[in-house]
Amino acid sequence: MPTSQSTSGPLSIAIVGMGTVGTGVARVLLQQPERITRRAGRPLVLRHAVVSDLKKTRDVELPAGILTDDVQRVINDRETKIAIHLVGGLGAAREIMLALLESGKDVVTANKALLCEHGPELFAKAHQLGRSIAFEAAVAGGIPIIATLSQSMAGNQITSISGILNGTTNFILSEMIQRQQTYADALRLAQELGYAEADPTLDVDGTDAAQKLVILTQLAFGTKVALNDFPRQGIDTLDLSDIRYAAELGYTVKLLAISKLVENQLEMHVSPTLVKKQTPLAEVNGSFNAVALSGDVVGDTWYSGRGAGQMPTASAVLADLIDMAVGRAQLTFQQLELWRTEPNFRMLPTSQTSSRYYLRFNIEDRPHMLADIADVLGRHQISIASVIQHEAPEPAGGTAGGKSFVPLVIMTHRTTAGNVDAAGKEFAKFPSLRAPLVQLPVAN
Amino acid sequence: MPTSQSTSGPLSIAIVGMGTVGTGVARVLLQQPERITRRAGRPLVLRHAVVSDLKKTRDVELPAGILTDDVQRVINDRETKIAIHLVGGLGAAREIMLALLESGKDVVTANKALLCEHGPELFAKAHQLGRSIAFEAAVAGGIPIIATLSQSMAGNQITSISGILNGTTNFILSEMIQRQQTYADALRLAQELGYAEADPTLDVDGTDAAQKLVILTQLAFGTKVALNDFPRQGIDTLDLSDIRYAAELGYTVKLLAISKLVENQLEMHVSPTLVKKQTPLAEVNGSFNAVALSGDVVGDTWYSGRGAGQMPTASAVLADLIDMAVGRAQLTFQQLELWRTEPNFRMLPTSQTSSRYYLRFNIEDRPHMLADIADVLGRHQISIASVIQHEAPEPAGGTAGGKSFVPLVIMTHRTTAGNVDAAGKEFAKFPSLRAPLVQLPVAN
Repeated sequence: MPTSQSTSGPLSIAIVGMGTVGTGVARVLLQQPERITRRAGRPLVLRHAVVSDLKKTRDVELPAGILTDDVQRVINDRETKIAIHLVGGLGAAREIMLALLESGKDVVTANKALLCEHGPELFAKAHQLGRSIAFEAAVAGGIPIIATLSQSMAGNQITSISGILNGTTNFILSEMIQRQQTYADALRLAQELGYAEADPTLDVDGTDAAQKLVILTQLAFGTKVALNDFPRQGIDTLDLSDIRYAAELGYTVKLLAISKLVENQLEMHVSPTLVKKQTPLAEVNGSFNAVALSGDVVGDTWYSGRGAGQMPTASAVLADLIDMAVGRAQLTFQQLELWRTEPNFRMLPTSQTSSRYYLRFNIEDRPHMLADIADVLGRHQISIASVIQHEAPEPAGGTAGGKSFVPLVIMTHRTTAGNVDAAGKEFAKFPSLRAPLVQLPVAN
Repeated sequence: MPTSQSTSGPLSIAIVGMGTVGTGVARVLLQQPERITRRAGRPLVLRHAVVSDLKKTRDVELPAGILTDDVQRVINDRETKIAIHLVGGLGAAREIMLALLESGKDVVTANKALLCEHGPELFAKAHQLGRSIAFEAAVAGGIPIIATLSQSMAGNQITSISGILNGTTNFILSEMIQRQQTYADALRLAQELGYAEADPTLDVDGTDAAQKLVILTQLAFGTKVALNDFPRQGIDTLDLSDIRYAAELGYTVKLLAISKLVENQLEMHVSPTLVKKQTPLAEVNGSFNAVALSGDVVGDTWYSGRGAGQMPTASAVLADLIDMAVGRAQLTFQQLELWRTEPNFRMLPTSQTSSRYYLRFNIEDRPHMLADIADVLGRHQISIASVIQHEAPEPAGGTAGGKSFVPLVIMTHRTTAGNVDAAGKEFAKFPSLRAPLVQLPVAN
């Protein structure tokens, strides 16, 4: 009975992992009990807060007796019905989640790496045990994209997801674009401001965005995909000159994570992408995330908010927690397309994906170069839309002393990744080209 | 038990009102049964489609025997558990909804006027009967703003809602701004393209946006507000010259519906508003809607999509219908802040609301006018931020033949509506001013 929720007694919960997000969640639970009780229909009592280091100072005052460094206390407590799992990484995080589920708890998690890597196993285990996992906080923090895909778009077949899913890289790109800083300088600033970690590898190489895309794809398309099933490229190899040429052509550069249906097959990739200026995705700056979502009934929709950080992520965790307390999350979990053994859609082979492309060559400044390049492109069915080659300064000592190289930028018409790769293989053998050939897709 | 849903048999539903949206809903239900069954956990069987005119041709092929012009057939059918209520207007729509609830049906509706006017009565009735009402489609069509407020922001106290909630007026304003058309010409185009009705009054005078704002305010702030409790101004009196001056000052004009907390009191209004160019709200064009939503935990978030039209609205209805079939909507309905007799927040008296203002005067082109106006403003604590007065052509026959009037535009610093109104009363007595004094707020 719906009304039974409001007459239920207090519900015991635990936070496993009191890092930044856990602290934020605890703060709202402890400082806004009236609000949480009203929204959940019953008091939520924080019974355990599990930490790895009991001595560390924390930015929240916890009731006596709830802090522990022993996760078994939570696992063994049959009265605790919901566990907020904020343990990072894979191995131990997986063990802990399995133990929490097996001990009869529903689990709220923010760990996207875990769900990307072990999601199918964990979801199946929860299903089999009659338990539920909620994971709004795992993707795009303050944007309710999981709820939107799971519930609000239920009448639709999603046709396209296109997202800025990593705030760190979006901050770095915004700095490079707006302040003409190099990648290295922008990264350093991001680290100083706390937007990037000391080891930023998983953010800047596109892994974090790709992990989130795997989760969204499973929800939206009912297709389980592994991280290495689709191409991903980060911003760590992006040169400031490419951002400048893109601007000259009327584009900005964003790290886009895309999953979309093309003739009933699934095309996915994560890549720095040229995005036309003055379109919504181009205007998402700083550490904000954004998702453009299209469905066959609703058409185009658009969501934006802070994708990470303590309180935006805490907001997502709290929404899941309240959904669990109300009983909605359990109903939702049963209806998600996480159990299919047969995928709804198969992957489009990468070579058949199509796009317009931005290509930058380092060419030897000699006669017939442009003709040679255009010839290769033409033979591979790649049609040229525009060209930028700026006049190079005449070499001071003449050309006799060695080769001089200049950049050549070509925007293509729509072609396949297979054609571009085949042309790339020919270019790799050109003695008059200096590596690397830069190759970025252009958003529709 | 959660899993009981997936093992349940078919669920009978009815559509009451087969206009544009009803036809769109029926089309998806009948053409995508496999999808709907999967998402709802059981087949949804369309058992009745109630129309007012049986002879009218419809853009959907219905199964034999379900079309009827007798709503009693639905009301008397105990097997039909969910009714999709797409009856417009107030009187009959209210009677029908009450009868549906009393006959034991949960109701999905898109009628915002009905919920604005009779929401408290209908919600209380449903609550008392143990029934539920879902109304995602009543506000901002394809944007899941009701679900976001009801569930995804549950950990937050919403602090501000700022929305473009009427697609018709946004289309008209976009035409005026981008093509420099007058209001009358832009309205005519909107009517030709089907974006505006033959009688566009409720859209263009701000009533429709205000009705939606009342619903969002009750959800977000737990405060019941009547349509006449807050100021509303439409775009029907907007002059193209104001759009031009706004552009000169770096702003565009949008019909904004705003509900926000100011020192723990609620400020609400619907008004054409100057919005800084190149901010997200300024870039929402055509018939799109958008909502900027801030919460005390999540910070600023942002949603956009088509606010009306057959399929975006059908998408919202289908989401509610599936939520009802799964059992989520019933749980959600019980937790909404629709039952409070004591409001969470009281209204800030309109005179105390504060904003920057755009003021346009028609002044007599004579010495000391600017000084006279500045004196009145200054005495009412209104500080001037910028002024535009363009040079008027020297009158051909000299100034002896009568008075000549020129526009004067003043942007103020932040001041209260009370101050502006008091100054306006003084200006109304000025012989050297020609009415009307145009007065538009400026978004933060």
